[in-house]
Amino acid sequence: MTDHKNNAIKYAKEHQPSFLATLSQFVSIPSISTNPENKNDMLKAANWLVEHMGKIGLENAKVMPTKGHPVVYADWMHAPGKPTVLVYGHYDVQPVDPIELWNTGPFEAKIDGDYMHGRGTSDMKGQVMATLNAIESIMQSGHFPVNLKFCYEGEEEIGSPSMAEWLEENKQLLAADLCLNPDAGMLSKETPTLTKGLRGLAYFELKVTGPDHDLHSGMAGGIIHNPAQALAELISKMHDEDGKITLPGFYDPVYTISPEEHEEFAQLPHDEAFFKEYAGVDHLWGEKEFIAAERLGGRPTLEINGIIGGFTGEGQKTVLPAWAMAKISCRLVPDQDPEQVHRQMKDFLSQHAPKTIRWELKKLSGSPASVVRQGQPGLQAMANALETEWGKQPVYPREGGSIPIVGYFQKIVGVGSVLTGFGLPDDNLHAPNEHLHLPTWSRGTRALIHFFFNL
Amino acid sequence: MTDHKNNAIKYAKEHQPSFLATLSQFVSIPSISTNPENKNDMLKAANWLVEHMGKIGLENAKVMPTKGHPVVYADWMHAPGKPTVLVYGHYDVQPVDPIELWNTGPFEAKIDGDYMHGRGTSDMKGQVMATLNAIESIMQSGHFPVNLKFCYEGEEEIGSPSMAEWLEENKQLLAADLCLNPDAGMLSKETPTLTKGLRGLAYFELKVTGPDHDLHSGMAGGIIHNPAQALAELISKMHDEDGKITLPGFYDPVYTISPEEHEEFAQLPHDEAFFKEYAGVDHLWGEKEFIAAERLGGRPTLEINGIIGGFTGEGQKTVLPAWAMAKISCRLVPDQDPEQVHRQMKDFLSQHAPKTIRWELKKLSGSPASVVRQGQPGLQAMANALETEWGKQPVYPREGGSIPIVGYFQKIVGVGSVLTGFGLPDDNLHAPNEHLHLPTWSRGTRALIHFFFNL
Repeated sequence: MTDHKNNAIKYAKEHQPSFLATLSQFVSIPSISTNPENKNDMLKAANWLVEHMGKIGLENAKVMPTKGHPVVYADWMHAPGKPTVLVYGHYDVQPVDPIELWNTGPFEAKIDGDYMHGRGTSDMKGQVMATLNAIESIMQSGHFPVNLKFCYEGEEEIGSPSMAEWLEENKQLLAADLCLNPDAGMLSKETPTLTKGLRGLAYFELKVTGPDHDLHSGMAGGIIHNPAQALAELISKMHDEDGKITLPGFYDPVYTISPEEHEEFAQLPHDEAFFKEYAGVDHLWGEKEFIAAERLGGRPTLEINGIIGGFTGEGQKTVLPAWAMAKISCRLVPDQDPEQVHRQMKDFLSQHAPKTIRWELKKLSGSPASVVRQGQPGLQAMANALETEWGKQPVYPREGGSIPIVGYFQKIVGVGSVLTGFGLPDDNLHAPNEHLHLPTWSRGTRALIHFFFNL
Repeated sequence: MTDHKNNAIKYAKEHQPSFLATLSQFVSIPSISTNPENKNDMLKAANWLVEHMGKIGLENAKVMPTKGHPVVYADWMHAPGKPTVLVYGHYDVQPVDPIELWNTGPFEAKIDGDYMHGRGTSDMKGQVMATLNAIESIMQSGHFPVNLKFCYEGEEEIGSPSMAEWLEENKQLLAADLCLNPDAGMLSKETPTLTKGLRGLAYFELKVTGPDHDLHSGMAGGIIHNPAQALAELISKMHDEDGKITLPGFYDPVYTISPEEHEEFAQLPHDEAFFKEYAGVDHLWGEKEFIAAERLGGRPTLEINGIIGGFTGEGQKTVLPAWAMAKISCRLVPDQDPEQVHRQMKDFLSQHAPKTIRWELKKLSGSPASVVRQGQPGLQAMANALETEWGKQPVYPREGGSIPIVGYFQKIVGVGSVLTGFGLPDDNLHAPNEHLHLPTWSRGTRALIHFFFNL
């Protein structure tokens, strides 16, 4: 077994050039799940995965349709009596706008020193390939030590709207002892990380309409309620002066951070100085009675992800716009329910919207927060694997991000997730100039090899 | 003289088809002054005017450069002892976005029944052509009864930024007894209108910046002040709950509407029902102690003309945007000063902007309100001309719009303006599907013929 593992590690080290070439291919496919015009690219990325997984010795690799973007399934079930690992990943990526701020083509996969640049390099095509590279390395060095099933989805970046239904229909197929989910990331290059909680998400689109067409501001200003102003007035009321969210009942189901957990948050390596540096700001913002790491991992938020209305080109146009729209999302913590938050947002709007405008609220997605249980299968195997590679024990943060599938796997398939990953906080996820730190990626591949042997 | 006038009226009636064809040509040139990519179209429109003015017998027609878009000048000075009329107009038009809401191509100049559709048909290429058609009709029927000078600018829709300086350099050339300005419009098809006041304008662009790049909302929400939220919070504070503007000192120089003027406003034909119908709303908005016509013509306003930030495409993107921007303009009344309003806006931002964001305020244009004096040359001649064509005396409203040149002509050239025009409130100025009511346009042409003979 030690020889087998050593050979796998050796294989991984020797095959970095081919691993990089394969990742470049995968990154070059613009699989942006939110853009209807990239629908064919989504299928292309799914088929690319099927082909690659077949090549490295996995079986039954196939594209399985859902109501939205397809799932890629595969398995390898030749380790009787050994645990079955459900390997999770997503092959979709975020949009690339604002495109003009990219220093490289977002799908060029340009390598520059220790980095590969491109949309999805870190989130999470790089992580998918780290996993498949680890598996390839073990396969090429002998028999695989555990059974494997795969679920690579195409909707993670849009809130996994089709996955709950698809999982209901395929829960037998996916039955496993544990799920490996490398979409959670590390706190820093030298901080191996095992995420123990993720926030949920409730994403809305709010449109405020005033006049039935754009009006000349000189002929309507002062007598018609400007929808962009009305939308701003509504948004401004969604937080109070202390940064608390004012949706009625919003905090009622929110769990209380215990003194012990507060201590854990306080001991995480990211202090206020780190967050200021990371964001390029002089002052942080938010609930004063919680420290920054707590506000990020343990408290719910409400964010304006986008806003638009009226004339926004160069120069001036004296228009009173007919409508304005905002994309608004809440990050949720235990025990908030996205459906309840949807009702709270509707209640808020009913209470605060003036009769001078009309509003329409669309729910784009919703998923609850998820928590990893202590003693869950695979956790110790991953902790040991990370320690082997990094020479220190991992930290166990609650993270600010959301991965809806974690909750679905728990609830529908009955499988808990081991949440790790080798992306870094400054990888520019969801922003221009996303990149992947290649040395950390290679260490991640080796840690995953250790993980499979530790199970 | 009566024969001469009758012949001119007859000529105008008989030449409607050629007048329509000429207007179509003019409308088809996309002379959008705010768009850098339409710079050549601006020159094309100016040259088109020079050629047309030469054809109808005007002299010295030429394109004169300014620091921005050029002015078209011409004259006809062969009526010694008679007054000189400075004819004003603008050949630039508003942008066409949102383009998808147009039912015809905005520069197609499509005629459908009583209407011509297209950007600039009403504001104000139609008005420019009504004036030139009236002049052509008189020229073709004999000697012109007064002297003429022309100033057709290309910057009205962007606040005339180069005109004050250009007028200083050319005030001798433009010296005249009165200015005819047909950019002011009518209150309805059956309400001949002589505008007695226009609001001024102060136009700003406000950019709020937070983090130095777009962030993942799950990795920054709750600890970084969202710039779109911060912008909304600032905008929401620019009006109080009674619809009053809160810029410090904003109302100090605002003139008081006298009881007599209140009566005049109350007698204008546009009541609340009209404005609701015009805008397609169930409820009006604004300062409760003033009636709608007063709020529009006699009170200052602050409007959000546009707002943008973050992700605004289809679907969802969980981004905390790096910045958000709003276009904000104030309509001004006597005796507000646009420079003072600029300082008031800066004071407001200094007072209210939190330290968690940075802001930048650009002043895009500024012009004071203007008022027509009783007994001013040409006013009675126009009142009589309108009465001849419409069979009733005109109304004298203060209008909500702004025409910076009126103040500049008064202050720099020393010439008062006769403010009329034949555009209608429902012509969709500055909005998709702008159109011109052709029967009113023809009546306007005839009224202008009467006007020149009345002087």
